[in-house]
Amino acid sequence: MNELKIILMGFGAVGKGVAKAISVKKDNIKEKYGVTLKLVAVADSSSSAISESGLDEDLLLKTKETSGNLASYPEFGSKINGEEVLDVVEYDLLVEATPTNINDGEPAKSLTLKAFNSKKDVVTSNKGHLALFFSEMNEVAEKNNVQFKYEASVGGAMPIINFAEETLPSSKISSIIGILNGTTNYILSRMTSEGSSYKNTLQESQQLGIAETDPTQDVEGIDAACKTVILANSILGIDATYSDVEVVGISKITSEAIQLADKEGYLIKLIAEVSKDALKVSPRLVKKNSPYAVDGTLNMATIKTDLADEVTVVGKGAGSLETASAMLTDVINIIKTKN
Amino acid sequence: MNELKIILMGFGAVGKGVAKAISVKKDNIKEKYGVTLKLVAVADSSSSAISESGLDEDLLLKTKETSGNLASYPEFGSKINGEEVLDVVEYDLLVEATPTNINDGEPAKSLTLKAFNSKKDVVTSNKGHLALFFSEMNEVAEKNNVQFKYEASVGGAMPIINFAEETLPSSKISSIIGILNGTTNYILSRMTSEGSSYKNTLQESQQLGIAETDPTQDVEGIDAACKTVILANSILGIDATYSDVEVVGISKITSEAIQLADKEGYLIKLIAEVSKDALKVSPRLVKKNSPYAVDGTLNMATIKTDLADEVTVVGKGAGSLETASAMLTDVINIIKTKN
Repeated sequence: MNELKIILMGFGAVGKGVAKAISVKKDNIKEKYGVTLKLVAVADSSSSAISESGLDEDLLLKTKETSGNLASYPEFGSKINGEEVLDVVEYDLLVEATPTNINDGEPAKSLTLKAFNSKKDVVTSNKGHLALFFSEMNEVAEKNNVQFKYEASVGGAMPIINFAEETLPSSKISSIIGILNGTTNYILSRMTSEGSSYKNTLQESQQLGIAETDPTQDVEGIDAACKTVILANSILGIDATYSDVEVVGISKITSEAIQLADKEGYLIKLIAEVSKDALKVSPRLVKKNSPYAVDGTLNMATIKTDLADEVTVVGKGAGSLETASAMLTDVINIIKTKN
Repeated sequence: MNELKIILMGFGAVGKGVAKAISVKKDNIKEKYGVTLKLVAVADSSSSAISESGLDEDLLLKTKETSGNLASYPEFGSKINGEEVLDVVEYDLLVEATPTNINDGEPAKSLTLKAFNSKKDVVTSNKGHLALFFSEMNEVAEKNNVQFKYEASVGGAMPIINFAEETLPSSKISSIIGILNGTTNYILSRMTSEGSSYKNTLQESQQLGIAETDPTQDVEGIDAACKTVILANSILGIDATYSDVEVVGISKITSEAIQLADKEGYLIKLIAEVSKDALKVSPRLVKKNSPYAVDGTLNMATIKTDLADEVTVVGKGAGSLETASAMLTDVINIIKTKN
């Protein structure tokens, strides 16, 4: 293989990060692995740009920025989008970065299954289809003998799925306990440092663009619960789905509770626990100066093993380029298996 | 390959951990990778046990515990040791766990070179020969087309070398900043929490067996400097040796300095910095509630990258079984390349 033809689905923050990352890294990847990454199609929710000879990443970003969609991409812009793009373009790999949908996993689910059934590998940052249909998705991938990679779906740029597999093969993993949502970690960190109320801190986070206008998915623990399910399935081999996770969010946390904990040397964090005995997301006390005590929008995960004891990873849980870097790592790992 | 014949050199804390780890994991490794790990020789500084049909790990540990050496291992104990063992036994892999020697890297250097020149792979936990002769050692390995793995030499069970290579292939690493010595981190953590003096805290650490009777290598930053050199060479490709590292230890740190930092929201840590611009180990201020703020004997390292921003790993920097787990990971990675 000396060329990898990629269709990129979704051109929001993550999708744009992928285009940027490919633009920055393609020469390096060609040199190191002998493979040219070629974006043959990019689609957002209403339009696409399609060219079998390859699209220009920087022009894609500029087109989206100036016109708001991809239809006006010079010569190759169109109104074709969604599954139809997969029908009209020849490709090797689907990079799927559409928004997470926790109700039915769409459009990620249909796009991914269509790719699998056409014998194509898929790299995703999406949590919805994984949290709802982990086993089903992976069974279809296996049946078609294709690869399905989703490092970016948990913890953004914090390596966790590849990390567990590649760097801890000598140890048996019994549990993963971590902070898997950056928005709530930011809110709790600010409530601790400023002594401010939940309501005011949430408003501040919304003004900064850290929390969404409708913050439910983050503050009620739904996002963290999706990630909990993905880790349970992928690392611990627990056949669980979203509804198996016990979830309590942070909206009931008072500044008084945080100050009380602080006096005793503790912080309150929204902690996800993944083990054979428990799948849950809830506010918990953690010790200061422990690996759990990371501030701001950082994510972290402590992996409990038999031989290596506890090993922790910390990284940026979100961010356009950061999340894209995890997807590019998955792409490189797929390339490595084909060379 | 369905069998891997291993010679284990060094039977102190790490060597015993390796025997224990093999005992615990060999069935699992056979099942997963189809390879039987067989200890054909184990040597300490004055004796050995040698058997081509394989030694019993638990009996090795028991023999060492009861007699203090391996000469009394039933039937297969002997006074042969050191390089001579490599001459009399047929083997595939040398697992080298002799004590670190920062003056001339011996006996690790000679043992390792002898193995390389016999076309054998080597896994080591030793820092001396790597800190002094990194390029030379790796050149000989390359010339002989054998593998040289040293994950355990930096950070014990904290994955760092494999981590950088395997889980961050999409990013360019510009620097590594971390806490690479557990003893000094313990002393500084206790001085912070107890307000105690350096002298008293060192004594306490010695009584607990955390600091050595002669604590120089740890408290003067020599151990951390060795690890700094290994990371510079292995991850950043900087051709450096031990004498290139600027080193200041912790023995001049006062409890007053620590309390002053504390009041401003900082901790004092012995920080190793690895970048093109700086190779140094020195006490530095780090923010509380940052990934650098880990307490006790933990090690940590923050890897600064272009795409993934900063990614941090935290783990046990020492410990018999923990360090052995990193060596076993190297062994498994070697097995993977042969299957």
